[in-house]
Amino acid sequence: MENAAFDFTHRLHLHAAAVEAMLDRLLDRHPLNGEIARPERLLAAMRHGVLNGGKRLRPFLVIESAALFGHRGEAVMRVAAALECIHCYSLVHDDLPAMDDDDLRRGQPTVHKAFDEAAAILAGDSLLTYAFDIIAADETELSADIRVKLIAALARAAGLGGMAGGQALDLMAETRKPDEAGIIMLQAMKTGALIRFACEAGAIIANAPREERERMAEFGSAIGLAFQLADDLLDVTADAAAMGKATGKDAAAGKATLVAIHGVDWTRKQLSGLVAQAEELLSPFGKEAALLKQAARFIAERQN
Amino acid sequence: MENAAFDFTHRLHLHAAAVEAMLDRLLDRHPLNGEIARPERLLAAMRHGVLNGGKRLRPFLVIESAALFGHRGEAVMRVAAALECIHCYSLVHDDLPAMDDDDLRRGQPTVHKAFDEAAAILAGDSLLTYAFDIIAADETELSADIRVKLIAALARAAGLGGMAGGQALDLMAETRKPDEAGIIMLQAMKTGALIRFACEAGAIIANAPREERERMAEFGSAIGLAFQLADDLLDVTADAAAMGKATGKDAAAGKATLVAIHGVDWTRKQLSGLVAQAEELLSPFGKEAALLKQAARFIAERQN
Repeated sequence: MENAAFDFTHRLHLHAAAVEAMLDRLLDRHPLNGEIARPERLLAAMRHGVLNGGKRLRPFLVIESAALFGHRGEAVMRVAAALECIHCYSLVHDDLPAMDDDDLRRGQPTVHKAFDEAAAILAGDSLLTYAFDIIAADETELSADIRVKLIAALARAAGLGGMAGGQALDLMAETRKPDEAGIIMLQAMKTGALIRFACEAGAIIANAPREERERMAEFGSAIGLAFQLADDLLDVTADAAAMGKATGKDAAAGKATLVAIHGVDWTRKQLSGLVAQAEELLSPFGKEAALLKQAARFIAERQN
Repeated sequence: MENAAFDFTHRLHLHAAAVEAMLDRLLDRHPLNGEIARPERLLAAMRHGVLNGGKRLRPFLVIESAALFGHRGEAVMRVAAALECIHCYSLVHDDLPAMDDDDLRRGQPTVHKAFDEAAAILAGDSLLTYAFDIIAADETELSADIRVKLIAALARAAGLGGMAGGQALDLMAETRKPDEAGIIMLQAMKTGALIRFACEAGAIIANAPREERERMAEFGSAIGLAFQLADDLLDVTADAAAMGKATGKDAAAGKATLVAIHGVDWTRKQLSGLVAQAEELLSPFGKEAALLKQAARFIAERQN
């Protein structure tokens, strides 16, 4: 098990470095064909929001889910980078004063602190828009049919019925507490939808049979829920230094979470169950899926 | 000429009503396949930002440019609606306190006034995301190849090297005035890029030869510049009631515009020249292009 954990951590860092390099290249100062100019300050704000040393968990899931179906290389990295642009845009906007009002992210000033609010709004908008450009304009490898399927799935995961809708529900939850079903739906939207897409992406890239695509999506839903439960748990148990951001905020805000309803022990049991479920879903893929299984465990057990 | 103007206005209203109906349908309360839920308040904010009785000029240009190449119907209307979602998202975000800080739009409260800032940010994000969903998920008529080309062109027109980048430059221009070349670039990005895409879209939908696609894009650039010059002119000459928003703001803010540099007479001459250029670009299409030529004239001569 210790070797497995080492394998996973090692691979996570390798993929993170590769995604970081890809994002750095995609966000360089040279305008692409059809772009009139890349305004310096806007580009700097986008880079601040993206090139922040994140764990790149979603790109990892894209890369490993694609590898499970035999796909590697430039096109997969672009999809991984596009997804990370969407994830980072959502963080930039969620941190705004009108939203969660956070000054720090990974120990660094958030984009509206390092620049200003207008720059943060536009940097988020531009990252979101660029994500679709990155997939659509890639004519190296993936067919138009695959690219358009990826875009459709990604847009649906990120939009009003997915991540953005989940953030809207989360803001509403501050004044009107949702019940347990409401919390589960909110979290499936806010954090679950994008993680689900990350796991489904490999099957879409490989044009895998419907059943396998659905299996990967279910795996994504399980670890997405685990991710959120672990996050809620960390807000209760971890300290701010380990997280690189404020903790105890949920409880202080009287926020409805499953941890608040059911307690820490129940949550830990749920997490074990979700890991088992995730591993079971991947069992048809045999030992090829070992790293993704380790990812499920990492997500459930992470300490920051 | 009077009949021509009538034809144009009549057709503009017809298309606007059709686009409004399409947007109303796309933004109904039923979640699509893959959406977990459509949060009521977020959806209401999106609808407030979109179903606002706009002129729907960009959709008109999509519909008429597609008609020029023999394409009509559902798929064209979806592209028109997607483009309008992007235009409206940009208005919702531009109106925010951190940006242009406008309380009124078409005589109605802006989204952050009718709802709140967080809702306006998320409604804009969701409209932007939904635009790509609308094109990508349309499996009725357009090939995947055409849809992915539309998405690539639209994303590039809307992103950091186009509309969003132009808004970033515009905000910077408040503190450091751009020179004439800077103003022209800023405007080509902020308002030009999306109008250019609208005119190019028909050629993309029809998979027209490269030369015809470029001709339509050039037509779009000409009327995009005319649109902005007319807007700057109206800010100087019109009254607030006719515009449905505050006027004289540019001069009061000491904002750099071509009108401010060269004056009203020069601007009117430029507008005539741009209309002539636009008409010349369409001359190979013969009388089929009559409505688009009228659109060019309308844009240059509009009083609100």
